[in-house]
Amino acid sequence: MALKLYELCGADDRRFSPYCWRSRLAIAHKRLDADFIPLRYTDKEEIEFSGQDKVPVLVDGSAIVYDSWTIANYLEERYPYRPPLFEDDSDRALARFLNHWTDNQLHPLLMKLLAYDIYRCLDSADRAYFRKTREPRLGMSLEDAHAMREQHLPALTALLAPLRLTLSEQTFLCGDEPAYGDYIVMGTLQWARRVSELSLLAEDDPIYAWRERMFDLFEGFARYEGAPRLVDADDLR
Amino acid sequence: MALKLYELCGADDRRFSPYCWRSRLAIAHKRLDADFIPLRYTDKEEIEFSGQDKVPVLVDGSAIVYDSWTIANYLEERYPYRPPLFEDDSDRALARFLNHWTDNQLHPLLMKLLAYDIYRCLDSADRAYFRKTREPRLGMSLEDAHAMREQHLPALTALLAPLRLTLSEQTFLCGDEPAYGDYIVMGTLQWARRVSELSLLAEDDPIYAWRERMFDLFEGFARYEGAPRLVDADDLR
Repeated sequence: MALKLYELCGADDRRFSPYCWRSRLAIAHKRLDADFIPLRYTDKEEIEFSGQDKVPVLVDGSAIVYDSWTIANYLEERYPYRPPLFEDDSDRALARFLNHWTDNQLHPLLMKLLAYDIYRCLDSADRAYFRKTREPRLGMSLEDAHAMREQHLPALTALLAPLRLTLSEQTFLCGDEPAYGDYIVMGTLQWARRVSELSLLAEDDPIYAWRERMFDLFEGFARYEGAPRLVDADDLR
Repeated sequence: MALKLYELCGADDRRFSPYCWRSRLAIAHKRLDADFIPLRYTDKEEIEFSGQDKVPVLVDGSAIVYDSWTIANYLEERYPYRPPLFEDDSDRALARFLNHWTDNQLHPLLMKLLAYDIYRCLDSADRAYFRKTREPRLGMSLEDAHAMREQHLPALTALLAPLRLTLSEQTFLCGDEPAYGDYIVMGTLQWARRVSELSLLAEDDPIYAWRERMFDLFEGFARYEGAPRLVDADDLR
C-alpha cells in the first residue's frame, strides 16, 4: 500500500512547504510510492487524526507520523534495506545541527524575502489566515516586507557562506552522494523557488550548481519547470 | 616517536588558538603522544620548513601537515585503527559544514568580543603585530572594540541557537560519543575561554553542559582551572 503524505498546497496545487519537500525527497530517496495529498492552511481538520495541526503528516498503514525530522527517522527505521537517509548515528547527529541551522537561521531570513510571494501563491481561502499570522511575526505588513526585501540580500549572501564554502569542496552536503542532510537544505531552497521569481543564487554560486544536481535526482522529481505563475497584487485585496 | 604539534602561545605559555585546540583534541582522541611546541606570532621562522606561516603544523616522522582540517584527515588516514574522528565519508562531509559555520560565522563574531582580551594575553613581542593586523579587520581600535563588546552578546546568543537546540537533544554534536565535529566547535569556545573572563554561556545553557562534558574528556585535557591571568591594560601601551 502506498504511503500517504499530507502536505501544504497553494492556489494552483503548488507544493511549496519546505518541511513537506524534505519528506517528499526522503520518500523518493527510499524509492517508496506515495500519494501526496494537498492541504490548505485552512483545511487543518483533515489532519486532526494526527493529533496536531501541522504538515507534513505521513500515513503508512496504521502508522501516523508528523514532523519532517521524525518522518525521516521513521522511514530510516521502517525501511532499513532501502537506500539510507543517514549512514549512521553520528551522521544523523550532525545532520540535526544542519536541520536546526536551516530552520533557525536560513528560514527566518528567507521568510522576510518571500512572505508576500507566498501570500500571492495561496488559495484565496488561505490568504487572510496567512496575513493574520505572518504580519505580527514580520512586524510589518506583507507589502512593506516585500518593498524592503532587496535590503536583506547581502545578509542572505553572508548567511549562506558556510554552505557555499562546503559545496565548493564537495558534491553534496553529505559527501559523494545525497542524503537527508541535502534534503533538509533543499527543502528550504525549494520553498523559495516554488513561490518566488526572486533570484537568490548567482549562476556561478556553488550552491546553484548543487541545486541543479538536486533537481536532477529521482528523474527530476524536484525540478520545477518555468517560473511560478504569480497573481497580481491587485487581485488579492 | 611522538608527534610534534607547533601551536600558538601567549605570554604565560597560554595555548589559545582555536585551530590548534582542534588538533590537540584530535590527537588526544586518537590516544597519540605529542609534544606541543609553543610559538608566538612573531616566531614564524620556526615553521618555515612547512612552506607556509600558519599554525597548527603537525610533524609526524617525515610527514609535515598544516591546517587543522587537513591534520584531522591526515590523522584519520594514518591511524585508522585508533578511535575514529569521522565515522564515514558522509559524517566527514557534514562535519565540514560545521567547520565552515564555526570559522565563518561564530569565529568573526567572537573576535569582536575577544580581540582586546587576546591582545592582553600575548607576549609583548606579539602585541604590536596583533594590533596592526587585527585593528583593520575590526575597523576600530582594540580598545574601542572592547568597550563595545557587550552589545554583541544578543547576536551571539542568536547565532548559537542551532548549537543550543542540537545539544538540548543529544549528548555530543556527533551523537552519543564525541568526535571531530565536537572538537571543531570546542576549539573555538576554548579559544574564548583561554583568553577572556567574559561569560559567554549561561550555566543553564545546553552548550555550557556540553562544554563541561568536553572538559571531562581525556582526563580533563581541555579543562582550564581558574580564570585567566590578565595583564592590566595600562601595562600594555
